[in-house]
Amino acid sequence: MENTNKIIFLDGTMATYVNREVMQEMMPTFNSVFANPVSNHAFGRIANQYVDIARKRVAKGINAESNEIYFTSGNVESNYWAILGLARANKDKGNHIITSKIEDKSILLACKQLEKEGFKVSYVGCDDNGIVSLSQIMGAMRHDTILVSVQVANGEVGTIQNLNAIARTVKEKNILFHCDATFALGQMPLDVKAIPIDAMTISSDVIYGPKGVGALFVKEGTNIENFMAGDNSENGKRAGNVNVPAIVGFGKAVELATTDVFQNSHKLKIVRDYFVRSLMENIENVTLNGSQHQRVSNIANLTFDCVDNEALAVMLDLHNVCVTPVDTRFEPSYVLKEMRKTPEQSHSSLRFAFVKNINKVDVDNMVETFVVLIKKLRELSPLRKSTKENK
Amino acid sequence: MENTNKIIFLDGTMATYVNREVMQEMMPTFNSVFANPVSNHAFGRIANQYVDIARKRVAKGINAESNEIYFTSGNVESNYWAILGLARANKDKGNHIITSKIEDKSILLACKQLEKEGFKVSYVGCDDNGIVSLSQIMGAMRHDTILVSVQVANGEVGTIQNLNAIARTVKEKNILFHCDATFALGQMPLDVKAIPIDAMTISSDVIYGPKGVGALFVKEGTNIENFMAGDNSENGKRAGNVNVPAIVGFGKAVELATTDVFQNSHKLKIVRDYFVRSLMENIENVTLNGSQHQRVSNIANLTFDCVDNEALAVMLDLHNVCVTPVDTRFEPSYVLKEMRKTPEQSHSSLRFAFVKNINKVDVDNMVETFVVLIKKLRELSPLRKSTKENK
Repeated sequence: MENTNKIIFLDGTMATYVNREVMQEMMPTFNSVFANPVSNHAFGRIANQYVDIARKRVAKGINAESNEIYFTSGNVESNYWAILGLARANKDKGNHIITSKIEDKSILLACKQLEKEGFKVSYVGCDDNGIVSLSQIMGAMRHDTILVSVQVANGEVGTIQNLNAIARTVKEKNILFHCDATFALGQMPLDVKAIPIDAMTISSDVIYGPKGVGALFVKEGTNIENFMAGDNSENGKRAGNVNVPAIVGFGKAVELATTDVFQNSHKLKIVRDYFVRSLMENIENVTLNGSQHQRVSNIANLTFDCVDNEALAVMLDLHNVCVTPVDTRFEPSYVLKEMRKTPEQSHSSLRFAFVKNINKVDVDNMVETFVVLIKKLRELSPLRKSTKENK
Repeated sequence: MENTNKIIFLDGTMATYVNREVMQEMMPTFNSVFANPVSNHAFGRIANQYVDIARKRVAKGINAESNEIYFTSGNVESNYWAILGLARANKDKGNHIITSKIEDKSILLACKQLEKEGFKVSYVGCDDNGIVSLSQIMGAMRHDTILVSVQVANGEVGTIQNLNAIARTVKEKNILFHCDATFALGQMPLDVKAIPIDAMTISSDVIYGPKGVGALFVKEGTNIENFMAGDNSENGKRAGNVNVPAIVGFGKAVELATTDVFQNSHKLKIVRDYFVRSLMENIENVTLNGSQHQRVSNIANLTFDCVDNEALAVMLDLHNVCVTPVDTRFEPSYVLKEMRKTPEQSHSSLRFAFVKNINKVDVDNMVETFVVLIKKLRELSPLRKSTKENK
């Protein structure tokens, strides 16, 4: 087992490093272009120009208009605002919402909040591959349904949803459609004009942009309650001082992530697929979770039979591989559960989210490590033992 | 009128540049310490250590405990969360809130939201110097009052409130006390143990720290509703990915701002007072608004009789002086209005908020500019004309 001392970060859905070009764009905004962009003086106007450029870049990245982009503190805020803001502002039309059971926790928490406020929420399931059921969505639709929210891609297994079919079905009934595109941006093309989307969540910290910033796309003319009651910022919709450096970085990150998205994501896919193939060739009883065909390029969620995922993560950490188990010993992954995985399978699964600075040599080194570690952990596994004894 | 080409930024309550030492602390967190601090691997633990240090620094700066500091996206979020979170979580004890008419807009907007939810809010006034009336607060207290929120210092005129007296009066009645210390931090000592405070708002972007980050101090044991329904971040109280770089920068900025606070703020005060004195000596009919004795070191709010503040700001901008009028032509400042200023006086007033890189030579240059501009604007003023004609 070669020790290259390079730390391999396989946690790209939890965080990414900031791209060098992004950093370069941000630098002036800390010390020279530092003014508040709402101020109408030399410094304020320059800051405002920077924000304008960023807003245009973000808009262009998803084929939206600049005035449809509202900057937030990240995907959690965007999701929370979208669900609560859209539901509350359209209460007069009905009080029923539909979402899936495998959404990001921020969506599910926002829905719980809506339930406290008297809204009714239907949570639809997914198939074994993590594909949200269109027929269940159609079955859940009621005359008083005002909002449907479904992710573009799942952050845990990487499955890409049938966005177009869902969006069109929802919009045919004149129901608002929100999608959480956090884990899709930069991995696949997103076009809010080609698909009928009323609101979409995107975030900076998983596309090599700075932390603490994201956006909510809100289609022009869509009723949404202001976030934090609004003030003079973000067209009165989202209160708070404009976070110029983060917004500028986000703008550049979106530009980089959405230009040549096929080519860029394909590069990542090659390394990711090489990793999965190598593991499967060298280790028995490894399963790839989620759809094989509808999956973002950076994520691979794997089950290693009879291997405790927390123990594996700890041992990988000792070998300079960074990965975070999604579930805990006490609570299996709610996504894998919906995909009909047993608690044992969940506790033997890890999500690997590749970042751009990993190459095939890194993968070769890692796979050697995996072979040794998995062997060791399986020897220690009580599950393995009982399986043997039962035979 | 000497043109030094140096842009003088007098908008320090709207934004400050990021201190060099702060920037140095932040830099590694963009590219090497970039992981999500909730991740239990090498990178995650290092990120978490950085956040821990920042949390300790922020806590120390206001004499709080680390576990009483919750990071937010800035003062607006902190204020909004404090007002709504404290009121909603303590609804069973009563539904009456007291605040002042001269609070930050985020406090007033949050109170409007509470009124929509059925809470009753009493808005108390201030004296001619902008000092919030303790007797009015006492008079407004009811058996069902659950929360009082009063700023530490006003961001528009700089008046420092009688915090200790207000806090003690409020706490004697077992009512929760929140204070917005955004414009006080770094200008005066803040001690949440010396004064009975349950929650306090502070922010980074006015103390030479990065934008997009602030904190809410919540005294241990205080009931507050989670912000954005909470998740695993910030002890479950504030949802969202941890903004490591901004938090790290904020921590350093608080450390710098609160170490030798008397000495640091005194340096600023000397330049600010020199500016005010020089203007008053060289220009007739200039009034300093707000308390002369209870005032933070960086702010001077001045009324120039018969001078349109927007015109003055535009002309100052052309002479490389950055200042943002608080009011608009259509809406006089609500703070100056409460201080019994006429709409004409409000429209002739500007708030100057000094930052550390301004020296006496800059002031000398500026005062020359002011003398010429004010003379010109007064000659053009319709108010001036009518005053003359009336005589």
